[in-house]
Amino acid sequence: MTNAPAPRLPEAGNVTRKSGKSCVILLSGGLDSTTCLAWARAQGFTCHTLAVDYGQRHRIELDAARRVAEAQGVRDHRVVSVDLRAIGGSSLTSDVAVPRHRDEAAMAAAIPSTYVPARNSVFLSVALGLAETLGATDLVAGMNVLDYSGYPDCRPEFVRAFEALAGVATRAGVEGARFAVHTPLMQLDKAGIIRLGVALGVDYALTHSCYDPSPAGLACGACDSCRLRANGFREAGVPDPTRYATPV
Amino acid sequence: MTNAPAPRLPEAGNVTRKSGKSCVILLSGGLDSTTCLAWARAQGFTCHTLAVDYGQRHRIELDAARRVAEAQGVRDHRVVSVDLRAIGGSSLTSDVAVPRHRDEAAMAAAIPSTYVPARNSVFLSVALGLAETLGATDLVAGMNVLDYSGYPDCRPEFVRAFEALAGVATRAGVEGARFAVHTPLMQLDKAGIIRLGVALGVDYALTHSCYDPSPAGLACGACDSCRLRANGFREAGVPDPTRYATPV
Repeated sequence: MTNAPAPRLPEAGNVTRKSGKSCVILLSGGLDSTTCLAWARAQGFTCHTLAVDYGQRHRIELDAARRVAEAQGVRDHRVVSVDLRAIGGSSLTSDVAVPRHRDEAAMAAAIPSTYVPARNSVFLSVALGLAETLGATDLVAGMNVLDYSGYPDCRPEFVRAFEALAGVATRAGVEGARFAVHTPLMQLDKAGIIRLGVALGVDYALTHSCYDPSPAGLACGACDSCRLRANGFREAGVPDPTRYATPV
Repeated sequence: MTNAPAPRLPEAGNVTRKSGKSCVILLSGGLDSTTCLAWARAQGFTCHTLAVDYGQRHRIELDAARRVAEAQGVRDHRVVSVDLRAIGGSSLTSDVAVPRHRDEAAMAAAIPSTYVPARNSVFLSVALGLAETLGATDLVAGMNVLDYSGYPDCRPEFVRAFEALAGVATRAGVEGARFAVHTPLMQLDKAGIIRLGVALGVDYALTHSCYDPSPAGLACGACDSCRLRANGFREAGVPDPTRYATPV
């Protein structure tokens, strides 16, 4: 179905094959985090997935996360509620409209209203708490710097700062453990992520990306997330299984 | 009512008088965070308080936080729900018994079961999100290193690591803002905190510290938090307004 070359698997830093070692994966149910999960399984990790119900308008992604976790046979899947609506500041957690029909230049020009203040700090902190409970020191998350909307907490410097925090924030860190936040997608664009996922056997039909889905769960086809997703499939030469309300 | 000398007010780092500058204060409703709020008001900050409903067995502290916020006339008070029960790992968020009747040596010997994995990372991250929404760059939190139970995320190195994270995690940080996490109680023991609060006019009868209160809201008098509180009042020479179920 695809002409894409089989990509080289990104390495997990100093991790080679982690037979049975537990890791915690932030799984939103979207394309990126689903690919991360497949990557972590391929690395040999025992996978514990964590979805966050943060009052996002696209709560439907939580169903996708559950489907993906089940399809990939994770050890366990949890949903943690964090009510970020109480702090506001984002079109994803308030009644502000999600931007639509923006081209790549517009997406790149400024941090958009879909930025959720401190979201990845909150999510990684919850993942860190779960890791500590499980005795794990490896976290996996789908941030990527190339192909997204300029969110500050998707950059390598953020990830390094969080690793430093984890080392001093936890009982395990005090006892000498080193925490690693693996971001295997960091340097990939959306097409590259899709090629990686296809090589790892990901079924993207199970995933959900749209920020502003219809009540019936159709992707809007107009928000940044839909456009990046559709362009990614196109560039990767992979059929897009997404059901869009309007053609992208 | 007290013979305690008026303490010197801890300085807010490079902050002197912040007339009207907004700050976000983590307010649990306990003795420490209530003192922090009084300190922040004395510094001239406009105070936005944030309590976290994290599934703690002593949820009654949320009522105390509301009372304290009202009594001290904050700009606004919010409660954010973060379901840390879903990750477990602590006697404060599970059915594991809270330790009782431990002396100071026992408290100091090891990180106790009341430690909630990554709690302060989660709480400060939520506070950071609120700060970003408000356009604030000052956070205030009640950690202190001397008189507590060896929680790793109450230490100065944790606070510094979080400030570094905040600088790279946020839109404001990317645009050059410097975030500060003020911890005015860091080097004070419980008696010193109480003396500071009394000097600032805090009504400690409004606060709640007990980890394991009775259904009627009485403090147990036996958990670490009750014992530290009671000893603090005794050492400070200040009458303890707490209603204990059993004498401490």
